[in-house]
Amino acid sequence: MNASSFDQQYSIADLIHEITSGNRRALSKAISMAESTLEDDRKATETLLQSLIAFTGNAKRIGITGSPGVGKSTFIERFGLSCIEQGEKVAVLAIDPTSQSHGGSILGDKVRMPMLARSENAYIRPSPSRLTLGGVSNATREALLLCEAAGFTTIIIETVGVGQSEVEVRSITDLFLLLMLPNAGDEVQGIKRGIMELADILFINKADGQLSQFAEIAKGQILSALTLMHSPTKSWNVQVLTGSGMEGLGLNELISLCNHFFDPKAEHHDSLLERRKMQAEEWFELALRRELVIWAEQQTSWQSEKERMLADIHQKNIVPSTAARHLIAHVCKA
Amino acid sequence: MNASSFDQQYSIADLIHEITSGNRRALSKAISMAESTLEDDRKATETLLQSLIAFTGNAKRIGITGSPGVGKSTFIERFGLSCIEQGEKVAVLAIDPTSQSHGGSILGDKVRMPMLARSENAYIRPSPSRLTLGGVSNATREALLLCEAAGFTTIIIETVGVGQSEVEVRSITDLFLLLMLPNAGDEVQGIKRGIMELADILFINKADGQLSQFAEIAKGQILSALTLMHSPTKSWNVQVLTGSGMEGLGLNELISLCNHFFDPKAEHHDSLLERRKMQAEEWFELALRRELVIWAEQQTSWQSEKERMLADIHQKNIVPSTAARHLIAHVCKA
Repeated sequence: MNASSFDQQYSIADLIHEITSGNRRALSKAISMAESTLEDDRKATETLLQSLIAFTGNAKRIGITGSPGVGKSTFIERFGLSCIEQGEKVAVLAIDPTSQSHGGSILGDKVRMPMLARSENAYIRPSPSRLTLGGVSNATREALLLCEAAGFTTIIIETVGVGQSEVEVRSITDLFLLLMLPNAGDEVQGIKRGIMELADILFINKADGQLSQFAEIAKGQILSALTLMHSPTKSWNVQVLTGSGMEGLGLNELISLCNHFFDPKAEHHDSLLERRKMQAEEWFELALRRELVIWAEQQTSWQSEKERMLADIHQKNIVPSTAARHLIAHVCKA
Repeated sequence: MNASSFDQQYSIADLIHEITSGNRRALSKAISMAESTLEDDRKATETLLQSLIAFTGNAKRIGITGSPGVGKSTFIERFGLSCIEQGEKVAVLAIDPTSQSHGGSILGDKVRMPMLARSENAYIRPSPSRLTLGGVSNATREALLLCEAAGFTTIIIETVGVGQSEVEVRSITDLFLLLMLPNAGDEVQGIKRGIMELADILFINKADGQLSQFAEIAKGQILSALTLMHSPTKSWNVQVLTGSGMEGLGLNELISLCNHFFDPKAEHHDSLLERRKMQAEEWFELALRRELVIWAEQQTSWQSEKERMLADIHQKNIVPSTAARHLIAHVCKA
């Protein structure tokens, strides 16, 4: 069996072998296949993931976010390199859901992180931002598993913007790291409370030179704001660190903290296992929603009845939500 | 027929009569019913909307957003009051999708906008932020129609945060107004390009006192940034205004511009009609996705097969996306 029309160079068997051998080119092919919505590619991805499932699930899955200007690229590059120094293999999946008309502001990931991109223990990949409902997270989840199968031990899911994408990234990672600016006073108001509540670790970046004193003030303010919030991870106390991606300050402390977060002997470790379980269920629910639509579209008279309903909607004979119920009652057999 | 178990005080016939008479209490009951996911409430909402459909579609639907700190509440209050002075009846529906754990930062809308809340020609209502996938926009769309049926001629959909919620609000409104701060230089980078591209009008708020000179510089920068973007509304040139919600500056100019935007004789008016048509189709598609899940859950053996799949997922025998395809193939009849 070939790996679909997408790429005739690798058979599925080849892909499995190459991915588990850590071949990044094969990994890229597989991720592109997972991002495709063609039926052949979906089937090939299923076969591939089913074969690789035993090799997945062992990486540290870390979500990283922060407002524009917080220095995310520089931070991730230095953080990633520090992880590699400690023996990790690091994959970075970058998501930008906010730009609809264009590819997003995460352009040229290899330009953004040139040193990390050159490391043979790193893999950097933008995730598509314009897939249909539920599609971004499905493709990203599959990409994450593929990276794990390829032997990456730390997977960073990076997102841009403040809003829905953070909630999505939180839902596919173990540890959520929020980068903040050392603007004492400002940032607690500027970063939405809903986003702060997602974070296991807050890292006040750019805490170098003159700004380091502001970072300490900011840290105090954030700590007192945190007393009013619940930790997203049961039995884990949310931590605030200061440092600088640019100067490499605070990164070793951060990595120690991350290691503690993932320590299987720590009290909160059960929360991580429970979270993975809930995340799998959530993925299943999202996939069900998507696949149901694909199934419905294959039913006889779905298309013709749908067009009839659309005509009624446009003539203002029926409200769209009611039309949806009518169409399903008419076409789908009980 | 009673308006479901939700409220025994009004029959559906009563609700129809009271809503079209402009009774805000009845309107609130109907919106709460539309927000409910109980089957009885869904059916009652359908009956209600079907009876009211002829009274809907005539309001100006205006989306308003801006970063935290831009002065949205004050702006909307003054803007709403100015609209009322010009003979409009104004409804404000406030959405905050970012806070998951709590009701959101839009708390106490009547406290945020005390003067507007007291006007008999205004109606202010927070929209729930924690409904399931697709649920927020469905309930908001239905609330919007109900407000129109109640005689409101301008419906403001307010959202907080920068991200996905703006895209959603854009998809249910005619005119999208982005509030910006007079921070020359900063704001073009701070506000994501994807959000700026959604706006028909940009209003630089807080352009009073010392900041008014910065507002003019910011205006120039935004105008030049706009030359690189497409207008979201065909044949409409995106406009940038400066003013102050607090001081009431620029609001009459803004309302004139809004009136021009909605002028049925203007060249771009066809774009608005086309947009409404596309929005109805999008609503239909979203409703289909939601209702398909409800339908599937009613199928024999759906629940037992689903539990079997979940067990396999948790034992890492199958990837969730593959499990979803298997479940549907097994339960849903072709």
